[in-house]
Amino acid sequence: MKTDIEIAQEAKMEPIVKIANNIGLTEDDIDLYGKYKCKISLDVLQRNKDKKDGKLILVTAINPTPAGEGKSTVTVGLGEALCKMNKNTVIALREPSLGPVFGIKGGAAGGGYAQVVPMDDINLHFTGDMHAITSANNLLCAAIDNHIHQGNALRIDQRRIVFKRVMDMNDRALRSIVVGLGGKVNGFPREDGFMITVASEIMAILCLANNLMDLKERMGKILVAYDLDGNPVYCKDLNVQGAMALLMKDAIKPNLVQTLENTPAIIHGGPFANIAHGCNSILATKMALKLGDYAVTEAGFGADLGAEKFLDIKCRYGNLKPDCVVVVATIRALKHHGGIDKAELSTPNVEALKKGISNLEKQVENIKKYGVPVVVAINKFITDSEDEVKYIKDFCSKLGIKVALTEVWEKGGEGGLDLAKEVIDVLENEKSNFKCLYDEKLSIKEKMNIIAKEIYGADGVEYLPQAQKQIKEIEKFNLDKLPICVAKTQYSLSDNPALLGRPEGFKITVKEARVSNGAGFIVVQTGNIMTMPGLPKVPAANKMDIFEDGSIVGLF
Amino acid sequence: MKTDIEIAQEAKMEPIVKIANNIGLTEDDIDLYGKYKCKISLDVLQRNKDKKDGKLILVTAINPTPAGEGKSTVTVGLGEALCKMNKNTVIALREPSLGPVFGIKGGAAGGGYAQVVPMDDINLHFTGDMHAITSANNLLCAAIDNHIHQGNALRIDQRRIVFKRVMDMNDRALRSIVVGLGGKVNGFPREDGFMITVASEIMAILCLANNLMDLKERMGKILVAYDLDGNPVYCKDLNVQGAMALLMKDAIKPNLVQTLENTPAIIHGGPFANIAHGCNSILATKMALKLGDYAVTEAGFGADLGAEKFLDIKCRYGNLKPDCVVVVATIRALKHHGGIDKAELSTPNVEALKKGISNLEKQVENIKKYGVPVVVAINKFITDSEDEVKYIKDFCSKLGIKVALTEVWEKGGEGGLDLAKEVIDVLENEKSNFKCLYDEKLSIKEKMNIIAKEIYGADGVEYLPQAQKQIKEIEKFNLDKLPICVAKTQYSLSDNPALLGRPEGFKITVKEARVSNGAGFIVVQTGNIMTMPGLPKVPAANKMDIFEDGSIVGLF
Repeated sequence: MKTDIEIAQEAKMEPIVKIANNIGLTEDDIDLYGKYKCKISLDVLQRNKDKKDGKLILVTAINPTPAGEGKSTVTVGLGEALCKMNKNTVIALREPSLGPVFGIKGGAAGGGYAQVVPMDDINLHFTGDMHAITSANNLLCAAIDNHIHQGNALRIDQRRIVFKRVMDMNDRALRSIVVGLGGKVNGFPREDGFMITVASEIMAILCLANNLMDLKERMGKILVAYDLDGNPVYCKDLNVQGAMALLMKDAIKPNLVQTLENTPAIIHGGPFANIAHGCNSILATKMALKLGDYAVTEAGFGADLGAEKFLDIKCRYGNLKPDCVVVVATIRALKHHGGIDKAELSTPNVEALKKGISNLEKQVENIKKYGVPVVVAINKFITDSEDEVKYIKDFCSKLGIKVALTEVWEKGGEGGLDLAKEVIDVLENEKSNFKCLYDEKLSIKEKMNIIAKEIYGADGVEYLPQAQKQIKEIEKFNLDKLPICVAKTQYSLSDNPALLGRPEGFKITVKEARVSNGAGFIVVQTGNIMTMPGLPKVPAANKMDIFEDGSIVGLF
Repeated sequence: MKTDIEIAQEAKMEPIVKIANNIGLTEDDIDLYGKYKCKISLDVLQRNKDKKDGKLILVTAINPTPAGEGKSTVTVGLGEALCKMNKNTVIALREPSLGPVFGIKGGAAGGGYAQVVPMDDINLHFTGDMHAITSANNLLCAAIDNHIHQGNALRIDQRRIVFKRVMDMNDRALRSIVVGLGGKVNGFPREDGFMITVASEIMAILCLANNLMDLKERMGKILVAYDLDGNPVYCKDLNVQGAMALLMKDAIKPNLVQTLENTPAIIHGGPFANIAHGCNSILATKMALKLGDYAVTEAGFGADLGAEKFLDIKCRYGNLKPDCVVVVATIRALKHHGGIDKAELSTPNVEALKKGISNLEKQVENIKKYGVPVVVAINKFITDSEDEVKYIKDFCSKLGIKVALTEVWEKGGEGGLDLAKEVIDVLENEKSNFKCLYDEKLSIKEKMNIIAKEIYGADGVEYLPQAQKQIKEIEKFNLDKLPICVAKTQYSLSDNPALLGRPEGFKITVKEARVSNGAGFIVVQTGNIMTMPGLPKVPAANKMDIFEDGSIVGLF
């Protein structure tokens, strides 16, 4: 079997100029980055502001399992399938982080015959967006320590600086550090730490901004520290938001690439799906809606985290109205939710499927609460038995949900035609009545209560003393009227990764709460979130190489 | 008077495709980065390997003074002037570092009407070369700490890790830090520090590599640490040089931009001029020599540091043979070397000029030791008196050196025509017999002695105990047969910045010596070198902004 990079390297890419032309972009609308990548000018949105948007299709999934679901692959495959049916379609995806590429996972941009290309560039520096975010983030950090060093007019409490430096690398040694050592010329010593770039609030802001001025304003609102009286200090107090916006002037433009079947794909922004909202940029999605009659996008993790944040945060700030949600599952993963170990998932087991399908059922129920029609996509595996397939089809039929099998990994767009037909059927015959789940003007606890009960199926929410204190402080400074961004395990509807299927009779425990005031959400943490990964015993980097003829190995 | 950015923003840039075509590059030879920047494929060198090289002109200067000399401006203006005379000319320059742009200096890429454009992009992320270097450097650092964390099979002595993390930011708080705090999962605590990206050995390697495989091999040879027995540990022992080369696959390609007068300019690489050799990449210079009949390039600081390293390090590794060296001076600066304060430099003072011209005289003598013809360029100021101009012309005439006045800041290429004529006269009538100053197979002290006596005019060299010990260690591991890269004040021929003009009767004191084994030179330090700048009280960043229409302020 070919590796992803082998398949990718055999791809017959079209010049990106041609892909751009196909969706109505002129050479003046784009800035090329080599022959197969370009950035799209934001003027395109302005010029098309009166043009009707295309249909918005969100691809999400059940709670992830070690068996794999293939959400990104289905997103790419669905877009390709719609193109095969002569539907003018544009895909919108997140861009990958560089650091993890060198860790366990290698590269990633879909998989098999449902990939975006040029895969090597997308997984390395791409068009430099991550580097721009790193620079803007670290300029702000340098400005904070410099302000203190130069006299500290703002009286910043160096024990309470909440904005951290970032690096796009898996580097555990930087998680907890002391900076400013070595004497007076090096500033004041203090505790600090690096996060990985995608965890930066600047990344979340990039993905929620509607234009460059909005980006600048949001960056100015970042809460960076508290002063010695306990009052918030914002980025704009240091007056570097202009320079930061300057650093982001190109990064804000969505990037256009293509799939293996030459379907246009806009890849832009990739915030963490725990301490941030885990979706590509609003601008990328809006661009896809203006350039395509169909825009296919995705959200990180399972639907309880990814789709919830897409619908309650991204759609709220971008004024987006999804027309259809696709929930991806595999029979293997559903059996895992039914209590079966990874090693035994290849054995047919309708009983386990019956039990585990409750996870899919709940995720579908949840989407319906937003008023959006649902289609279930079952990503097919060779080990799926006929009885299992029949059971799942009957189950969806009873619930009145459309379902389709997909084989996009093996077949590309061809393997997504059935799904595409169901999606088009929904778009033509069912009306979306999208509304957000809660009013952001409610209190933090009211909002959290709604999410926990309605989406997770919890009985309620408990708050540890630290979280209580933090929520009070956020309220004290009137920073609480923002949507909630829950950081929770992606493996369960609950906050306990061991509770698979559709757990009941549990409560959610909130450990911490903090405001991402620039991004515009309250992060409610139900566990410890690792914001700087480490490298494994044998990093993927050790297997990577490039040779004289330019061929690459190890970036799979 | 217009600011540099105002002049730059009024420029009538040609599409870079056209500039590239003018020097024989096809669309397949280049990768566009927007409409006004591109990278040039290294295949172009291979394809033209039998083509005769153009003439190589190095622009250097007297020891810098607060009065300013305008070396980069003359480099750009000379290139433009040669073009005006219908000579097919390509300029090769260093690319600026991002960090300092936000500090005191703002942007820089020549000045006045002798600038390279697009100035904003060149000073911001450009084509991402700095970011690629940062990533490759920090991947190696993460690999070092990860190796120790995962069992430390190489028995790396965590007290003796000599390879540091880098960031392209002026951030003094990162100069001296402790990493790996916070418990077992975060690795082993140790002292560390960040340098600014341009100080990375990877930058020096990029600039001295002849192709991607050479780059990879050199990166593998970087000395990163010592083990517990005191033996060297190299990058290749950690087996990440392949992944690092992958990260550098585009950064190794020279970047093409243009001057305000549409003269092609290759801007590539920008290593420190103290702990590294301070020249643009060998590949950029070679590309300029293949694409132009005349290639104009420059080296950092004054001729005693910049030209010496250009001739003894860069030319040695690149097998380059300069045909002419231009030494830039101003009358104001020479008067400063004659003992006059900055405030009084506008007053005519032939006596001070007579005294200070000894600095120019020595720099010219030095260049002649390499067998290369010299032209002196006097960058004209409005305050220069006729007597002063006459004195300097007579002085050069007596020495048999050609001299020309330039006004490139005010007039662009037009202001460099006299200089261009003198240079062409030299190229057509004087033969270069270039040879390096010393044999790199000599001992470190023998090589240093030659440089100190021949170039600086010192009586000898003294070594502090620390340097003695380090030199012995470098010799012990047979890493000493490399050219010398001296880190010394740029303000004096001596190692004392207060000794202006042409000091005599002094000795050079060597404080430290370390090997940059990948780059391929021995850094001999005569003072403390700051490898991470800080931000000033009011950083340039505070005045920078970008507005809705895309206009930029503060990046002057």
